[in-house]
Amino acid sequence: MDAEIVTAGLLVIGDEILSGRTKDKNIGYIAEYLTTIGIDLSEVRVVPDVEEEIVAALNALRRRYTYVFTTGGIGPTHDDITADAVAKAFGVPIDHDPRAVALMQERFPNVDLNEARMRMARIPQGAELVVNPVSAAPGFWIGNVIVMAGVPRIMQAMLDEAAPRLKTGQKMLSATIPAGMREGDIGTPLAEIARAYKGVMIGSYPFLNEGRPDTNLVVRSRDPQALAAAKTAVETMLMTLRANGVGAS
Amino acid sequence: MDAEIVTAGLLVIGDEILSGRTKDKNIGYIAEYLTTIGIDLSEVRVVPDVEEEIVAALNALRRRYTYVFTTGGIGPTHDDITADAVAKAFGVPIDHDPRAVALMQERFPNVDLNEARMRMARIPQGAELVVNPVSAAPGFWIGNVIVMAGVPRIMQAMLDEAAPRLKTGQKMLSATIPAGMREGDIGTPLAEIARAYKGVMIGSYPFLNEGRPDTNLVVRSRDPQALAAAKTAVETMLMTLRANGVGAS
Repeated sequence: MDAEIVTAGLLVIGDEILSGRTKDKNIGYIAEYLTTIGIDLSEVRVVPDVEEEIVAALNALRRRYTYVFTTGGIGPTHDDITADAVAKAFGVPIDHDPRAVALMQERFPNVDLNEARMRMARIPQGAELVVNPVSAAPGFWIGNVIVMAGVPRIMQAMLDEAAPRLKTGQKMLSATIPAGMREGDIGTPLAEIARAYKGVMIGSYPFLNEGRPDTNLVVRSRDPQALAAAKTAVETMLMTLRANGVGAS
Repeated sequence: MDAEIVTAGLLVIGDEILSGRTKDKNIGYIAEYLTTIGIDLSEVRVVPDVEEEIVAALNALRRRYTYVFTTGGIGPTHDDITADAVAKAFGVPIDHDPRAVALMQERFPNVDLNEARMRMARIPQGAELVVNPVSAAPGFWIGNVIVMAGVPRIMQAMLDEAAPRLKTGQKMLSATIPAGMREGDIGTPLAEIARAYKGVMIGSYPFLNEGRPDTNLVVRSRDPQALAAAKTAVETMLMTLRANGVGAS
């Protein structure tokens, strides 16, 4: 296991997410997936189907993080402009890729590869294909950017294809401690623990538990011993608060 | 009705969204809400609980869009740093706000306003409060930035509070036309319609309909007549394709 920290940015492309017509299901899936394999998702951006917006966001993210994943905009219609925008961001030509055409012909020998479908075979020069076992038209990988479909089932299959080739870092470990009390009752002693355990991230997540305010405390670290120590400190704090009647009502 | 276009950026703040532990439910809600009242959501960013990241993203967004909405990071614990980050972005001091303290005292007369809870009364100088009918601790509005809670029910109540004071533009109208066929069969004639109806945005959204590839076509415009004309053109195109046997199998 590598001690290096591997980071990622995610660029979600599509007017339909920004209009609210489609509710994104990819951010949460990708976040959890990357965390599990040892990559820290560090930033997400959602941009419309506008070339200069895609290019600017992609260039900002790819310079900053180990990897950038994109979702959306690689279909056969005029509003699918991701591949062209990625080519522009990298300053490389884009054209029909014989490998992509072959994958699509092989999968759908009786389907007319019309002008629209051939759009899905447009791949920036120098990119590797990311195979799409669901519907053939591939994603691609260029530099540190992995371009995937927006349809969740297809995106998930592409992520499975790309994942074994990703460099991963030391995994972030976490433990969730249900508090059974309001955040406001915990905040002061929790801040002391956060100050004492500098290498551990301590998060406090309020939620309504059948209408009643409750809190989950989450400790996170790459070091299992530091994690265990902070977890014990949080549990001890909660026991002390409970002994003083907090959260009992 | 104003012919002006009113835009918004959304900044989602929280490690828990980036780790995948919490699945964001606010982006889709806010996107749909703003579209309905005549504000175009133009960009979304998700950033961690890191002050300089929040400040940088907020400054980028607030210079660019009519409004910026933020969600998350205004609770009583040490990881709730949004109010301080917003004060820093605007270069104004931040302190306990007597109006916020009064709202909290009024609502919970028997609850101890300890150091942690008083954190929720920290409001940047010059901000207006955004009342929180669910759990009292308010959001706030400073310049063109509206700062809201991350818990969906509280965020939704704050958005309802802020909405009547927002300037809104001419509403984007839309019509969805179920195609009943694959995107690849539609792409070529659809691109011609998109070229012919420049003032109308035409989106094509593939989905798996019980495992079978299907497509929704969405036409959008602020001009009802242009919208109707483009919708008719799309419907005519689909009828022609169907007459030629496309999508029948």
